[in-house]
Amino acid sequence: LSGIVGIIGGMGPQATVDLMNKVISMTPADEEADHVHMIVDCNPTVPSRTRALLEGGKSPGPELALMARRLAAAGAELLAMPCNTAHAFLADIRAATDRPVLDMIDLAVDEVSAFGGTSKKVGLLATRGTRDSRLYHERIERRGWTVLDLDESEQQRLDVLTKDAKTRPIGTVERAAMAEIIEGLEVRGADVVVAGCTEVPLLLPEASPVTVIDPTLVLAREIVARCKGAVPRAC
Amino acid sequence: LSGIVGIIGGMGPQATVDLMNKVISMTPADEEADHVHMIVDCNPTVPSRTRALLEGGKSPGPELALMARRLAAAGAELLAMPCNTAHAFLADIRAATDRPVLDMIDLAVDEVSAFGGTSKKVGLLATRGTRDSRLYHERIERRGWTVLDLDESEQQRLDVLTKDAKTRPIGTVERAAMAEIIEGLEVRGADVVVAGCTEVPLLLPEASPVTVIDPTLVLAREIVARCKGAVPRAC
Repeated sequence: LSGIVGIIGGMGPQATVDLMNKVISMTPADEEADHVHMIVDCNPTVPSRTRALLEGGKSPGPELALMARRLAAAGAELLAMPCNTAHAFLADIRAATDRPVLDMIDLAVDEVSAFGGTSKKVGLLATRGTRDSRLYHERIERRGWTVLDLDESEQQRLDVLTKDAKTRPIGTVERAAMAEIIEGLEVRGADVVVAGCTEVPLLLPEASPVTVIDPTLVLAREIVARCKGAVPRAC
Repeated sequence: LSGIVGIIGGMGPQATVDLMNKVISMTPADEEADHVHMIVDCNPTVPSRTRALLEGGKSPGPELALMARRLAAAGAELLAMPCNTAHAFLADIRAATDRPVLDMIDLAVDEVSAFGGTSKKVGLLATRGTRDSRLYHERIERRGWTVLDLDESEQQRLDVLTKDAKTRPIGTVERAAMAEIIEGLEVRGADVVVAGCTEVPLLLPEASPVTVIDPTLVLAREIVARCKGAVPRAC
């Protein structure tokens, strides 16, 4: 059992809070002390993952490595990172610490296997940086499944929606826009959709015509299982 | 300007997330990097503040001091603690670090001065530990105002409601119970009510017959002002 989980967060801050909320909700707790001890670096100054991947901007790797070392020094025995795009720099983090670092992309792809048939089509709601770094594509295609990407206009809308969710309130207009993007994937034959950006779960509509895998939720479940040795509550 | 705020949290975890949400919502941000850098120790294993104050249980002071030192070592330049009762042990924290520690009780009592007349009656929604440690009473009475405490049956209900909020979902039943307690204070003449336990804001009904001061919100506002040098957004 890992006692304390360190969260490499702030990308954006709302996604970090979303992960914390999911960990709290899924923990079988009868009293305060039953909750998971989380040490959270909610650091909004990590260099843009997307700019680094697409435009040769400053790498966030060194800052992520520093956060991992600080969290380990503060007592974290297990590390997790609620930002899909940042997983392109996971090697920098793993090189910086001997603490295990959960891989949210792997966990989410494992979750996909429970849905649809053996040659399934997986709709991907990801930022352009995550898409082009092929974080999900390689793992999904290795299993013999197909990735359905967004078309260019949907990708532009998703990039704006997820960026704006970091600084503006989310309302019915934003949820309706996300619902349309999901419907587009369903119409093109998606058997399941992966919310492959941690702002997407914040934007999900109440109902969806296709199952949407939430990697933040899957990561929270793994944290609860590892830290409490317990079967997580439904969330 | 303080760059990084350290949050001495986990008492309970939901109250810590509530503070983070309020900081995020109140920060004038145009992009991710404009948000406040928070390092959060969400530690649910801090010994019970209430048992220490009422039953001579183990003091949480040493654990709170350790958390403050770890947060300072991780880079926190300012410390804050979203738990009213834990403020009875503020001296232990201040002795452990040279970083400034915000006093949520002081900030909340300052906020009260904006409401009602000069000889006002202040309704207090606090745990039995906070009540008996007179954290709010001394500061309110020093200003010439009167504290309206809960009666014994209301106090019992509040203690159960705030404890259960740490481990169970909050629904309409719990909000209705909190509304009744607030109405009781209003009927007895409260000019303003202080939500003097960080679980109370989680339980507040939509509407209230009297102004309710939320110390978590007041603390969040102070964090934004100190860390960003900015006028916080309305929340």
